[in-house]
Parts: sequence; C-alpha cells; structure tokens
Amino acid sequence: MKLKRTHSCGELTLSDREKEVILSGWVHTRRDHGGVIFIDLRDRYGMTQVVFNPNVNSAVHRQAEGLRSEYVISIKGRVEARPQGMRNSKMKTGDIDILVTEFELLNESKVLPFVIEDQTDVSEPVRLKYRYLDLRRPAFQKNFILRHEMAQVIRHYLSKQKFLELETPFLIKSTPEGARDFVVPSRIYPGCFYALPQSPQLFKQLFMVSGFERYFQIVRCFRDEDLRADRQPEFTQVDIEMSFVDQEDVMALVEGLVCEIFQKINHVDIHRPFRRCTYQEAVSRYGVDRPDLRFGLELTDVTSIVKNVSFKVFSAPAERNGKVKAINLGVLGGKLSRKDFDDLEKLAKEWGAKGLAWVKYEQGQWKSPIAKYFSSKEMETLSQKLNLTEAEACIFVSDENPDVVNQVLGNLRIHLGKKFKLSEGKPDQLCWVTDFPMFELDSEENRYVAKHHPFTAPAIGSVSDLDQDPLQVISKGYDLVWNGTEIAGGSIRIHEAPIQSKVFEILKIGSEEAQEKFGFLLEALQFGTPPHGGIAFGFDRLCALFCGVESIREVIAFPKTQKVQCLMTHSPAPLEDRQLKELHLKYVD
Amino acid sequence: MKLKRTHSCGELTLSDREKEVILSGWVHTRRDHGGVIFIDLRDRYGMTQVVFNPNVNSAVHRQAEGLRSEYVISIKGRVEARPQGMRNSKMKTGDIDILVTEFELLNESKVLPFVIEDQTDVSEPVRLKYRYLDLRRPAFQKNFILRHEMAQVIRHYLSKQKFLELETPFLIKSTPEGARDFVVPSRIYPGCFYALPQSPQLFKQLFMVSGFERYFQIVRCFRDEDLRADRQPEFTQVDIEMSFVDQEDVMALVEGLVCEIFQKINHVDIHRPFRRCTYQEAVSRYGVDRPDLRFGLELTDVTSIVKNVSFKVFSAPAERNGKVKAINLGVLGGKLSRKDFDDLEKLAKEWGAKGLAWVKYEQGQWKSPIAKYFSSKEMETLSQKLNLTEAEACIFVSDENPDVVNQVLGNLRIHLGKKFKLSEGKPDQLCWVTDFPMFELDSEENRYVAKHHPFTAPAIGSVSDLDQDPLQVISKGYDLVWNGTEIAGGSIRIHEAPIQSKVFEILKIGSEEAQEKFGFLLEALQFGTPPHGGIAFGFDRLCALFCGVESIREVIAFPKTQKVQCLMTHSPAPLEDRQLKELHLKYVD
Repeated sequence: MKLKRTHSCGELTLSDREKEVILSGWVHTRRDHGGVIFIDLRDRYGMTQVVFNPNVNSAVHRQAEGLRSEYVISIKGRVEARPQGMRNSKMKTGDIDILVTEFELLNESKVLPFVIEDQTDVSEPVRLKYRYLDLRRPAFQKNFILRHEMAQVIRHYLSKQKFLELETPFLIKSTPEGARDFVVPSRIYPGCFYALPQSPQLFKQLFMVSGFERYFQIVRCFRDEDLRADRQPEFTQVDIEMSFVDQEDVMALVEGLVCEIFQKINHVDIHRPFRRCTYQEAVSRYGVDRPDLRFGLELTDVTSIVKNVSFKVFSAPAERNGKVKAINLGVLGGKLSRKDFDDLEKLAKEWGAKGLAWVKYEQGQWKSPIAKYFSSKEMETLSQKLNLTEAEACIFVSDENPDVVNQVLGNLRIHLGKKFKLSEGKPDQLCWVTDFPMFELDSEENRYVAKHHPFTAPAIGSVSDLDQDPLQVISKGYDLVWNGTEIAGGSIRIHEAPIQSKVFEILKIGSEEAQEKFGFLLEALQFGTPPHGGIAFGFDRLCALFCGVESIREVIAFPKTQKVQCLMTHSPAPLEDRQLKELHLKYVD
Repeated sequence: MKLKRTHSCGELTLSDREKEVILSGWVHTRRDHGGVIFIDLRDRYGMTQVVFNPNVNSAVHRQAEGLRSEYVISIKGRVEARPQGMRNSKMKTGDIDILVTEFELLNESKVLPFVIEDQTDVSEPVRLKYRYLDLRRPAFQKNFILRHEMAQVIRHYLSKQKFLELETPFLIKSTPEGARDFVVPSRIYPGCFYALPQSPQLFKQLFMVSGFERYFQIVRCFRDEDLRADRQPEFTQVDIEMSFVDQEDVMALVEGLVCEIFQKINHVDIHRPFRRCTYQEAVSRYGVDRPDLRFGLELTDVTSIVKNVSFKVFSAPAERNGKVKAINLGVLGGKLSRKDFDDLEKLAKEWGAKGLAWVKYEQGQWKSPIAKYFSSKEMETLSQKLNLTEAEACIFVSDENPDVVNQVLGNLRIHLGKKFKLSEGKPDQLCWVTDFPMFELDSEENRYVAKHHPFTAPAIGSVSDLDQDPLQVISKGYDLVWNGTEIAGGSIRIHEAPIQSKVFEILKIGSEEAQEKFGFLLEALQFGTPPHGGIAFGFDRLCALFCGVESIREVIAFPKTQKVQCLMTHSPAPLEDRQLKELHLKYVD
C-alpha cells in the first residue's frame, strides 16, 4: 500500500476544507457527469464523494474509468466544498467532496451476486452462501457494532461490580439431561467422547465452591436439538453466578446491569425495581409464563359461572376439572367481523383448542352463535364478570386440560395485541417471573422433570418437605421477561448435598447414575459450598431485540440454516477416511 | 441467609473501630485460647480474625465449638482494635478483630483431601481431581484475577482503537492442514462432521472482506495433537485482524497494546519501538527464531576458519556444507568443570548433536581435550574470532546439518543463560522476528510446507516470482518474542486470489482440493478484498508469563492432563448406546 489513509470516509466536513487527505474504501456507486467521474467511496465509518476530473489529473482520471462497484481503492486529494445546490444534508460528509490527485487500486471485484443495500429481496440461501458480502450491508454493520458495544457494556459493568470473567472448558463430559449434547470423539481413548457444553452450569457452581464469589462469562453454548423457530445449534450466553446471595441480591444486580444496558445502548432510563409476577399469576392472567405487560387483554376465569349452563362445550370441561376462560377484547374486538373470528378460531385450533366461542355486545344484547345456549341471566352474569359493555367483544376457550386453555388464550392475546397494535409506542416493560414449580409431570414418560434444571434450589428447608408432593414444591427460580420475551433465566442453586441427592432421586436419576454423572458435584457440595445463585442471558436474543430485528440470524455473523448447515463452507461434510480411522469410528446405516 | 455481609474479609482496619459488621466466608484456621475461640475467616478478598468469647454470648460460643476448617459461616459483630502486641502488620486487617455477637452456619465441610495453602506437596492428579478445592489457594485466586484483568485491559484497549469484538463459529468445516481437527458428528446428516476451529483464521479474513476493518476476539481454539510439553487441547487466543495495513501498522498497534498490558498489569513502561530481528539473524546469532535478548552468549560461525584443520570433527562437516559454530561462555564458563562440560555434552546429544567440544583459555593456552588437534596459529585465530580471553571458556558444535548446530547451540545458550542466572534482574526484552521464509521443505514427505500458514502473504509482487525458488521467498510474517518466548505470531495475508491459488499449488493442494476446502475463500478474494493482516496472542501463555508460573495449567481453571483427560469429571467417557445410535456411529477396533 502506497497511499495510507489519513481519514475515514465518515468524518470529513466543511471545516476540513483545503486539507490534503487520503481515504481508502470500496467503490459504492459511480456516476459519470460531463467527463467527470463521481464515486461514493465507502468504508466502515461512512461514505464520501470523491471526484476524478480530467482537467486536474488526466492520467488518474483515465485509470478511474476502469473502476467498477466494490473495487477497493485508496485516493489522495483535496477536500472541497460542494457547490451549494449539490450538498446533501442527510450525510455527515454531504457538504464536501475530494478532488482526487493520486490514486491506488488495491483490489478488483467481480460483479456481485447481489447489490449491497439494506432493502434486498435476495433469498436467504444466496445471502448465506455469500455471507461475507451480505455482512457489508450497512444494517448488518450496525447490528454487529451494537453487539460489540453491548458486550463491552456488560463486561465493564460486571467488572466494576467485582465479577471475574473466568473461562470454562468446552471439551467436557456428556451428561444427557434435557437437550441433546453435541459430542467430540477422542482419538486417544477410542470409543470415548467429550461433549460440548449446553451451558457452563456445573463449572460456574464449582467456581463458587472455589471461593471466586462472583463469576461471569460471555460464552458459547451448544445444543443438538431439532431446530424449531429461531434457534441455532451454537448460541452465546451471558453467564453470571454469585455467592452468599439470595434471590433479591441476584435480581438487584441484574436490574442494575439491565438498566445500564438500556442507558448505554438505547439512552433510556428504566424504572427500578422491575415488576414482579409469580408463575401462577402470569399463567392465570396472561396464559403464559412470559407475559407482555405493555397491554391488557387479560384472561378471566369463568369456569365456576358456566358450570351449569346448557352449553355443553362450556359446562362439560367445567365439570371435569377443566377450565373455561375468556378475554374481553374491548371496542377493537367489537369491530371484528365473523370472518375475523373464524380466523382466530383457526389459530386456536392450531394451538390445540377444540374451538373458540365469541360474543359481541351490541345494544345490550349478545350477538353470538352461542347466544341461544344461554339464559338472559347467564348472559348478564358473564357480561358483568367480563366487564363487557356496549360495542365490545369477548372470546372464550374451554378445555378439560387447563394448560390448553391458558396456552391458546395466551397466544391469542399476543396475536391480538399485535393486530390491534396495542404495544406500539408503549414504554418497555421488564418483569420478573418467580415462584416456578420445581417439577413438572412428563405425562409421556410418567416421571417428574425439572422445570428449570436439576440444580435449582427448592424454596423449602428440608429434604422431607421435598418428598411430600413434589408438584407442590416451589423453586427459587426466576425469569426476566422483556415485553413478552424471556431474556434471562436463573435460580438460587442447591448448595447442600442431601437436597441435591433427593432432587436427583425425584427426577429418577438413580444414585449410581447420579454418582457417575454428577459425582464430582455431589462431592464438591460437601466441602464447604457457600449459598449461591445466578442467571444467564440469551445474548443473541438480547442483541436481536436491541437491534430491532426478528431473527437471531441477523446478529450472528456466520449462522447455520434451520437445517444446521453452513451454506458458505458446506459443513457438515464427510471426513477423510484416515480421520475416521484414527478415531476408530465407522458410519453405520 | 439471615446474616448478609456488610463488608468483605479484606477491608476492615482501625478506622472501622466500633462498627457493627457482618462478614461471610470460610473458616481458614481455628485456635482455642483460654476458652476463647479465634477464627481466621477467609473470603476472596482476604482474611479477618473473628473472636467468639463465651462471656459475650455463650450460646454463640457453644455453636462455634463445632466449627471446623472450611465450614462456611456468616458472623455479626463489632470491630475491635487488637491489643498492641497481638497486631499483625503484614495483613491489611491485622490491627483489628471482630467480637462475634451473632452467628449463622451456612454449610459444613468434610475434612479436605489437602490443606488450602500455596506451598503444597500434593500430587498433581489429586489436585486436579479436586480442582475446585485447589482453586481456593490464594496463589490460584491471584492468577485468575490477573487473567481477568488482562482480558479487560486488552478488550478496553482494542475497543478504544475501534476494533470490534466479533464472534466466529465453533462448529465449522474440517480442513485438515497442519494440526489435527477435533470433529463433531452431525446427527441430522449421518456420516457428516463439523470440526472445532484451530483458530478463527478464515473467518477473521472474511470479516475483512465484509468491511469490518478492525476485528478482535478472545476465543477458544482446539487442536487434537499429541500433547508435548505444556500444551492443552483447548486454548485461548487473542485474535486480531485489520484492513488497509502493512506490517508496520500491525506492529505499531500491537506495540501499543503490549505496552498498555505491561503498564496496567505490571506498572512497567516498555520502550517503543520494540527491537527487530530477521529470522536469518535470529537463527544465526541465537540459534533459535525466538531469541532471549536479555543476555549475550551469541553464536559465532567459525566454519570458514576450521575448514582445513586436522580435527576431522570440525573440518569434515565444514567441507560438506555443514556448520561449525561456537559460543564464548565468558568467565562464568571458565569456572565450569570437566563434569559440567560432560553434562552439557549429554544435553547436546539429547538435542541431536553428535558431540560437544570445549576449550578453556588459561594463561594464554587452550586447556581442552581437542587442543592437540590444533596448531598454535589455528588456536590463536579461533581465540581471536571468539574474543576468547584469560579465564574464559567456549563450546563448539559441528554438524553436516546447519539446523542441528543452531538448534543445539540455541538450546545450550538458553540452558547456560539460566544456569549462569544471566537474565535475573534484567529488563524485559521484546523483539519482533521478521522475514521468515514462506516455505520449508518437509524432507519426509518431500514437499513444501508453509512456515506460518497458507494464507500468509509473500513479500514479492507477482505470481511468477513465487514459482522461481519457493525456498527463497520471504513472507510477510512476524512473531513477537518476549524474553525468549513467542507470545504472538501473525502476518499480512494474501488478498489476491491468483497468489492464494499459486501458494496452494506450491503446497501441493490440488485445485480440486483447494476448491473443495477453501473455495469460499478463493471466491471471497475476488469480490473486493482489501489488503489486510493480523496477529494472534497465546492468551494462556501470556497470562502464565505475567503470573510468573511455569505451566499454563496454572492459569486455566479446569485443564486437561497431559493425557487429555479431566480427572475431576472423568472425561472423555463412553456414550450411552442411544447417543451413538442417533449419530449412526459404531466403534471399531
């Protein structure tokens, strides 16, 4: 390189007039005007117009005639004010251009498979194949600059709070629990494998046993799951753990961190302390355990009211420990058409409901296909319970399984919140969901499974309390929900070996299996383990939310497809024979 | 937890007298003195003496009688001045103790397998099995706090310099070149594998293609090699890449970073610019490509002088394009005994030499087993060439293979530097080694291999220059050497596809193979790739050097053994049958 840049393409203004500068970058666009060549030169920092005038330097001008989009060049020239009519007030550098006197071609470019612009209709497979070009788009550049800043803000905040960034191993032991592990065959111990961590959970707990007291890490984690929705096989986690704390301490620390992020990234002050909501309350009022609190549309339980109505769709589930719940959709709901309600019912069925009932309240009357099944008194009681008034509408879902009712109405609530644009312009709502149950019943396998993970502490004191009725035991777990998205989850951990053993027992992890998989943890807990707890943020999701993009693929530089492939490098791929042989492995059909 | 700490165990002094405080931590030691119990309570921040006096609170005192080493407790009490004679000026908290009024037992501890002390003679396997206890030792705590600080200093410095921390994938394509890849079988594509990255090399180059211009990452890398010396299968790298630069720019950036580290961690100012030394010069003067410049003991080439001596051990190799080189060991060498020289010869033979000759210069005479083979004139010429004067000694190594001569004398130089304590108290010496050859000849496979890696740019302009005599081509690679240890290595990269293709060809990577393995890179280079280059630091080694410890295992929280095992979790381990089945893999003997 002969011409070394003196400035970036994003900084020169009228105050730099007459300066001699050198810029380097990519030819973004090129225009010829009466023999003069105008090039928008782009680098990471912005765009500057550079001008090749044959009257200034005809040799350089001739060279510039060969320039095409995405060629890489350095230019030397003088900063000039653009003529008044030619200024572009939208660009920082819009008042000036550079009259080129020297020029260096750094590299050429073939014609790109697509144009470097934010608005693109190129298919995602093509974009992923040429990911390195897609990443040139200004929107992507912004996303990754934000991701970088977010990581620095988090690290800086936690470091100030005396947290130590400690690294945990990637080649660990496979302890299949919950999701599937990615595994790594050992060449030195044929037939043996390492696993890639689904999270550093056990290692961060061991750091607490070691007395580090405050740990964090921004760390890659791995899950070999069938990718649904917006998941990736490898994802990044902000992982935090602290000793001598209870839930309130972890929450206070996290609230400080989150407020710092909002302040530094979005320049917004968030009110502290955040709202709190128990798991029971969240499910009962919003149908989900990650409620979007920016709008109402709450669920109302009408089971006891409809127990004796003649409408069997309501009364039958109500009699059999099922639930009937409703949402008053307000006047916006009152404007929905029969077709709209049909569409809602279709969604409800997709989500597992047998059907959807609806009622419009007009001139004091129910207008509804189900009106005929109800007495005036019943209609009035229900209307009153739902606060249903003139021009409003409500929807009902009933099922023998209360979970179905909550889930379907919870989903419909989110759907209608979007449809009615209820959250637009509303302030961000951060909310802790607490008091999760320790265990759920896996009805297929007829056994208890951990709601958070097997290392979460129960909110009770003794081993015997755990045994009574596991489904009734509340855990010391907590999730942080932002506008209806879970951004972090954590818990106070079990720090006493007998309780940990009992939890394994309830989860049907036999003592021999527990010893083999978690023996080191059970032993560590007996050597003076302090009370401790922590939390983990999904860093990709957090970045996506702050970038305002739908998919985490927009904030991961080189993501895999939904089918877990890299379209750019073509991985996964078969190994060379000698590699398999060294690992003593054979592919079997 | 009822008693929440108000202070750490490392901060209270006389100025806190009379304060009521709560501390939490581990029982480090316990002494009973006339019915009063004294406990040194330890947390991450230090140690404080807490006192249980039966006359103050007899119930609490009774509870304290049950306390044993490493129990975890919280105590409430009043800060008192210790009696004058009992003060410990070596400890920050040595002037006070806490008179306990309330007490909470947080956890018990079994008797530990070893005592938590820095001086330990416990075997490494036991320490690795109970790594979480070993990490409680104050020296370890210090190492990891330094490691944390080092990472923050590096991140902060590079962020200020507009570098973006961008994450690269861990599940990548296997491109076996150089070291062996760890691989990860794909469940969804049976028979196909991902690989774990040996470094993010290609991805960071693609970031330059994408126009991010300045990238860094502190990132885990993986190499499935037979572990020799102080290696680990996973290690951490500070990875840096920048666009529109040449070697000088990368070096200047790195010097700034390194000076910042020395300043912030060691509070030492390092002189800039660092010394420079070509590869040729390093090997010729110091025998190695990572010279320790804190002391002399330079190698002198005497080949041309000894060509015609009657001593065949010298003249024979000298005639056959071999080398004879010597080191003047000075007066310290003059004090070595015959036994010392025998020991040196033993080492020389281990390192590949056929023997070692030595000469002491006493009263104007050679005292040496080889003196009889030389004429007075020859002795005088050699003595002059080596500046050998009264009471000094020198050693010679000769071989037909000059590499053997350099390597053996280079190793002996380091060995004697340590033996003579020549580097003690000397200022740190940082030195760039440059002008490496592009290629070496792998004489076993009779083909060229890359000295740095295949993406390093040659210091010549055209494809045809590369073809003439590859062994003569100098690369744009550079290593940073600190007191004889390579702490970073990097290069300007090839940014033009035709040169990259030619390098692959010279390395006997056929065009089909190049296309299959590196097709995406070759294509990316054609879409406007800027000139770029970078460097990578071995972060574990850097931390070990700053911590003053021999092994990187002392700065890695959960390392593997030399045999690539984790003794704590017992990995690697066999998988469950269903896991292997899902991967369509079978173990074959």
